[in-house]
Amino acid sequence: MSEKIPYKIYLNENEIPATWYNMRADMKKKPAPLLNPATHQPLTAEELTPVFCEELVAQELDDSTAYVPIPQEIQDFYKMYRPSPLVRAYCLEKELDTPAKIYYKFEGNNTSGSHKLNSAIAQAYYAKKQGLKGVTTETGAGQWGTALSMACSYFGLDCQVYMVKVSYEQKPFRREVMRTYGASVTPSPSPTTEVGRKILEKFPGTTGSLGCAISEAVEAATSKEGYRYVLGSVLNQVLLHQSVIGLETKAALDKYGVKPDMIIGCAGGGSNLGGLIAPFMGQKLRGEADYQIIAVEPASCPSFTRGKYVYDFCDTGMICPLAKMYTLGNGFIPSANHAGGLRFHGMSTILSELYDQGLMEAVSVEQTSVFEAAERFARIEGILPAPESSHAIKVAMDEALKCKETGEEKTIVFGLTGTGYFDMVAYEQFHNGTMTDYIPTDEDLQKGFESIPRFPGNME
Amino acid sequence: MSEKIPYKIYLNENEIPATWYNMRADMKKKPAPLLNPATHQPLTAEELTPVFCEELVAQELDDSTAYVPIPQEIQDFYKMYRPSPLVRAYCLEKELDTPAKIYYKFEGNNTSGSHKLNSAIAQAYYAKKQGLKGVTTETGAGQWGTALSMACSYFGLDCQVYMVKVSYEQKPFRREVMRTYGASVTPSPSPTTEVGRKILEKFPGTTGSLGCAISEAVEAATSKEGYRYVLGSVLNQVLLHQSVIGLETKAALDKYGVKPDMIIGCAGGGSNLGGLIAPFMGQKLRGEADYQIIAVEPASCPSFTRGKYVYDFCDTGMICPLAKMYTLGNGFIPSANHAGGLRFHGMSTILSELYDQGLMEAVSVEQTSVFEAAERFARIEGILPAPESSHAIKVAMDEALKCKETGEEKTIVFGLTGTGYFDMVAYEQFHNGTMTDYIPTDEDLQKGFESIPRFPGNME
Repeated sequence: MSEKIPYKIYLNENEIPATWYNMRADMKKKPAPLLNPATHQPLTAEELTPVFCEELVAQELDDSTAYVPIPQEIQDFYKMYRPSPLVRAYCLEKELDTPAKIYYKFEGNNTSGSHKLNSAIAQAYYAKKQGLKGVTTETGAGQWGTALSMACSYFGLDCQVYMVKVSYEQKPFRREVMRTYGASVTPSPSPTTEVGRKILEKFPGTTGSLGCAISEAVEAATSKEGYRYVLGSVLNQVLLHQSVIGLETKAALDKYGVKPDMIIGCAGGGSNLGGLIAPFMGQKLRGEADYQIIAVEPASCPSFTRGKYVYDFCDTGMICPLAKMYTLGNGFIPSANHAGGLRFHGMSTILSELYDQGLMEAVSVEQTSVFEAAERFARIEGILPAPESSHAIKVAMDEALKCKETGEEKTIVFGLTGTGYFDMVAYEQFHNGTMTDYIPTDEDLQKGFESIPRFPGNME
Repeated sequence: MSEKIPYKIYLNENEIPATWYNMRADMKKKPAPLLNPATHQPLTAEELTPVFCEELVAQELDDSTAYVPIPQEIQDFYKMYRPSPLVRAYCLEKELDTPAKIYYKFEGNNTSGSHKLNSAIAQAYYAKKQGLKGVTTETGAGQWGTALSMACSYFGLDCQVYMVKVSYEQKPFRREVMRTYGASVTPSPSPTTEVGRKILEKFPGTTGSLGCAISEAVEAATSKEGYRYVLGSVLNQVLLHQSVIGLETKAALDKYGVKPDMIIGCAGGGSNLGGLIAPFMGQKLRGEADYQIIAVEPASCPSFTRGKYVYDFCDTGMICPLAKMYTLGNGFIPSANHAGGLRFHGMSTILSELYDQGLMEAVSVEQTSVFEAAERFARIEGILPAPESSHAIKVAMDEALKCKETGEEKTIVFGLTGTGYFDMVAYEQFHNGTMTDYIPTDEDLQKGFESIPRFPGNME
């Protein structure tokens, strides 16, 4: 245990990145543009500004600037909880008796409990700078909503959160954390919006989905003066902000001369994975280095591994722009027995394009095996992980065990996006043996695919 | 905001202390010894070993060794979550518009959510070393129980936790965290022990207290082969282990040439405060430096500020040794409307003696003002604090505001012992306006004092 590399590598405060990195700048074939659902023409900045803050629209559309300076106010906020540690998992390596070297970037040491704060503070900053009164958003597992309420409280903005109903019910304490930061929280679908009322009429007993909640939040933002909508994943701007994860990871590894063979992250909408891999993918795109990159998704919501790469709505209410992405169809709602998080039907357009180009892989895993890995990890590494993060843990452990068989000394890096302190209902189900696995049938998927819009060149 | 001192001072891994510091070695007048309740004679190691692990008994009784080496296995575990950051509260200073410089030592960045892990891992290590099967303990707010279950899981020991009933009910998720680490959890008082049955008979509707739970855990440990009892606070050994907090704090301050004027910590049994102040008090005892040291306790359980400095039982069942300490009487049970934590009727004998010698001060604060401070702190510093820790926050903020009036540039250090993620029921009461303050009347206290044993030289 007396290695030169410490258990936790902390960068110094002045080593926190001062710029974000935009992978699109180095992609030869760029991700497909967002389309206006009425005209099927690429959306302009003018069309997007009623929904998003101006500066964020610019970031969303900018696919040529590689390095974007991080405003000083955001850097100051980052210093309250960053740099996050890159942990060498000595105990896990010993437990697995593997020659693999395992590292994880731990983003859970802040009150939102996850990496979501990295983008929340940026989006709140630009909203404040534009002179807005407040923002609306959706939240699934509650991490994004918590992060945004923290960020809004810091800048004195109003924060209205539509929370997926199943999470609202399973995670009552999340609501109180958001209230502590002054946010208002509404279970979605709700009767407070037109789209919510429609969805409730069509699916009376629905436990909700991120897609529904997005529709409601967008409607709430665009029907009020001084509000804009913000989103915690999927969008290009979010991956840009989250690149701080990967940039810190790479800086910490470089400091010790370590080059990873394999980078693993969980993928719901892609915010964590897109952030973690950013500088590594940049090297790969520029032909400077090669890495095996693996996205891990739940078998119950398998966008990459079983979805279609087509244009689709990001929301169930079909009021958002069309994005080209791996999707299960905006009408796909994962089974309620899925334990929260990673429930989105689509995927970041950037990651979708990289996956389509064969620059990264994807695997899906079932949730009981994910919780087994989570509990084992908690007991040996001391951190009780979020179910989302545990998807990456599961595959990292599997890969480390493969190294044990082959004798390969691979260096594995994975993203530990957050803690599971607000996921104890799911852990309780796991302990009580009431957790089950759910894999959608081909018929289930077919029903989802039918919700994908058909127009020339799309699904035809 | 461009100071030389960073927001968070992290020591390097090799700067984590390799020895604990024992304040008793530098006290001219030592804390009073534990007494056998039958003979009123000082307890011997032989009498204590049926209850506690041998090595821990030695640490409990040793009042002359100043520096105790930390075994390598414990140092390795410390590296998984230590060093903890010493945070410069720039944002709080700005919010309060104070010339004071505020620092806090944050011990919440681990799954137990508090400093309790520092002693839990030590106690589990010595139990393992002695070849025991397992340990029993009590837990109040649940932080100690979680910490101990993590430590036991790491060393493969059985862990049986008696949890104060009010906390068991208010914090169902704490139980699941402990189960994740393989512990068994029983609400106390319970019918599983003789002393629990007696207490339930005498006080049928009781919501429990730490004193009751201690009695049950001690009975459970001593009536089984291969088990010992461990305790998360009050004891000398616990303060010894917790000195790692103060040693790191001092090392971090020394690195930047900062000398605090004032050190503030919450006090229930004294584990955090005793750990935080250890090296500073050492300097004070040796006449090398002076600091103002303030213990903060809840007005609803005011051991220091309204208790008596006499011999008393540590537990309600009166099966533990007698300790000389500031106490409200072992029969004192704080009102159920008190929001968990800091509910113990007594206080560390070391801190009691230091307080009696005038080497530290104590103040009591009411809980609604504590939650107001907690929420304000959460919004500006980003960390959602535990109610216990928030007692220290409240007084640190008050002191910083006094500096604003006087213009003094005092340097204030306080202990932020943990996070409040499992305390959202209390935060909900605060948000809903259903939280009330409770201050025991003189008659309430008198009833408690009547439970203190009377013998020559004690309460006579």
